Amino acid sequence: MSKFLMMGMSLRKDSFNKKLIFNAHNLLSIEKSDHEFELLHFNDYPMPLYDAEIEAKGMPDTVVKLAQKISEADAIILSTPEYNGGMPGPFKNLFDWISRVKPMPWTGKHVLLLGASPGALGAIRGLAHTRVPLQSEGMFVYPDMFGLPKAHEAFDANDLLKDPKTTQKLGELLLKFRDHLKR
Amino acid sequence: MSKFLMMGMSLRKDSFNKKLIFNAHNLLSIEKSDHEFELLHFNDYPMPLYDAEIEAKGMPDTVVKLAQKISEADAIILSTPEYNGGMPGPFKNLFDWISRVKPMPWTGKHVLLLGASPGALGAIRGLAHTRVPLQSEGMFVYPDMFGLPKAHEAFDANDLLKDPKTTQKLGELLLKFRDHLKR
Amino acid sequence: MSKFLMMGMSLRKDSFNKKLIFNAHNLLSIEKSDHEFELLHFNDYPMPLYDAEIEAKGMPDTVVKLAQKISEADAIILSTPEYNGGMPGPFKNLFDWISRVKPMPWTGKHVLLLGASPGALGAIRGLAHTRVPLQSEGMFVYPDMFGLPKAHEAFDANDLLKDPKTTQKLGELLLKFRDHLKR
Amino acid sequence: MSKFLMMGMSLRKDSFNKKLIFNAHNLLSIEKSDHEFELLHFNDYPMPLYDAEIEAKGMPDTVVKLAQKISEADAIILSTPEYNGGMPGPFKNLFDWISRVKPMPWTGKHVLLLGASPGALGAIRGLAHTRVPLQSEGMFVYPDMFGLPKAHEAFDANDLLKDPKTTQKLGELLLKFRDHLKR
Repeated sequence: MSKFLMMGMSLRKDSFNKKLIFNAHNLLSIEKSDHEFELLHFNDYPMPLYDAEIEAKGMPDTVVKLAQKISEADAIILSTPEYNGGMPGPFKNLFDWISRVKPMPWTGKHVLLLGASPGALGAIRGLAHTRVPLQSEGMFVYPDMFGLPKAHEAFDANDLLKDPKTTQKLGELLLKFRDHLKR
Repeated sequence: MSKFLMMGMSLRKDSFNKKLIFNAHNLLSIEKSDHEFELLHFNDYPMPLYDAEIEAKGMPDTVVKLAQKISEADAIILSTPEYNGGMPGPFKNLFDWISRVKPMPWTGKHVLLLGASPGALGAIRGLAHTRVPLQSEGMFVYPDMFGLPKAHEAFDANDLLKDPKTTQKLGELLLKFRDHLKR
Repeated sequence: MSKFLMMGMSLRKDSFNKKLIFNAHNLLSIEKSDHEFELLHFNDYPMPLYDAEIEAKGMPDTVVKLAQKISEADAIILSTPEYNGGMPGPFKNLFDWISRVKPMPWTGKHVLLLGASPGALGAIRGLAHTRVPLQSEGMFVYPDMFGLPKAHEAFDANDLLKDPKTTQKLGELLLKFRDHLKR
Repeated sequence: MSKFLMMGMSLRKDSFNKKLIFNAHNLLSIEKSDHEFELLHFNDYPMPLYDAEIEAKGMPDTVVKLAQKISEADAIILSTPEYNGGMPGPFKNLFDWISRVKPMPWTGKHVLLLGASPGALGAIRGLAHTRVPLQSEGMFVYPDMFGLPKAHEAFDANDLLKDPKTTQKLGELLLKFRDHLKR
């Protein structure tokens, strides 16, 4: 049994990436397996901008709590927006804070990256940029990634993906990643 | 006459990158020229983590103020730490906020990247990672960069670079960049 | 007056990138200007795979000839395929050979990158990967790039771009780059 | 039992990367294990510059032979020079040729990247640039990498690493990678 954490890396309430990770969580949960898939909410872990002086006064509670969860997980699935062709500042800030906890929670974790974007390229440049620091800290970033283009047209009123082919493609990648962990 | 903004991209009071940009500002200021070199302080522009809902309620004052300054500048010199082999979260967050102002203040600006790090590689991976979103928004990122390794041993009690060769190398790059703007 | 070199970085006779650079050359040539736009052919500069032992016996003629041309140019426009999400081997090999000539011909040259690909992303990942070594050698890689997706459907029987909007977008970027050189 | 292929990605006879992979092969071979470590020589697989017209006439024998070996391997250890801050042209050319064989031999293979360079940074930028196309084709590129700086001073007359600490660090990474495959 493996434990998977899942999170959408945008703070906006109606975020496309919150919707995409919600779909991913659904797709994994309906498949029978002895794995555990826990959907976390980015907004539940508010953190200040990283400042070594804040850290010196004591690690913020949200950092300690999330670091503990990450330490106990086997794998992580993140859906991230692309800001300016790169990894979003708030996501990098969370990543940086967690990296200050010892032992480093990220190291050795398997991670699958998804991304939703209103553009035609589907966050593909943001995903490439996001891989770099994750790998630098010893994460096994899964080679395949999933980019959802035109995200503003992709979801129905229940936040479900409209296009069955997109859903199927996402589902296949999720199961491939899940089963990769079994090895 | 060109107007240069300069900033160290760390919030820590005794930040190596604040010291490095202070040295860079000194080196440019002592050279006679009709250019203007303004040293800004990252901590004077506190910003929340980017959230489209905050933006919808009105752009934060610090974003508006800094965006205005950037719009009026010809060139920017930034000294950035490397966090986890990449661009720091707080720097990316500032970059993302400013990018939301119309017309986009970053586009068409020339930028020189410096970096200080206690490690042996001198923030070189962080600088490479930082180039990507800056270029994506149409900045002319100067090809040469300056990485200061072992930054914890590099400055004296007055925050000045100890090693004359390092100072000379930094000075030469700064003048090359300054004169590049003249073209 | 500036001198521009242009080349498509694929060896295949019917290469999409040869067609794209041919269109770019047309678009620049029909505009009245006192600039010179020379279209070179990749196949006219055959080079062995880089091997320091070959170099030790004498720089290949094609390397010497092309290095001379690059040294005399002010700017370079290259159209490159994407191979495996990155810069093509034959293009990198040419870049590596030319970099061995002293003084380094690439340094200080302005370069605009175009890319054509049969895929939906239009060589965008290949272009990002190509920037890295070019910038490392001191080239001013223009921030904007042009990616042509579905290149197998993009050209007519005379190798001209079919879609007027694509042609216009390409033309605008080319003129922006050309005029950037004037500064 | 896993099968590991190992290769130094430089054509030069006295290449630092040939020496580094030779050391890596020694270190793995002296440890008792039921794995197989095969050291291949880049020069045994001469390939033309990739050209779709050559491919159309028939895949070169060296491509077919090496692709077969890669298909049968579980993992690959490569030591690569850095050319101009990036992946060397000849290495990328080999990678591109092999990628044309169906089914794609690279997909799903685990790979560890080493790099030797006479510079102070130890090929670290070249290694980062090399990861990108490998991951794009579905390789599991191990997060940790090994960069050997000042490679021209690193080996003794028998091509062995002089510094015991460097040897130990390399050995530890190799065993970590080897044991990662066991999972």
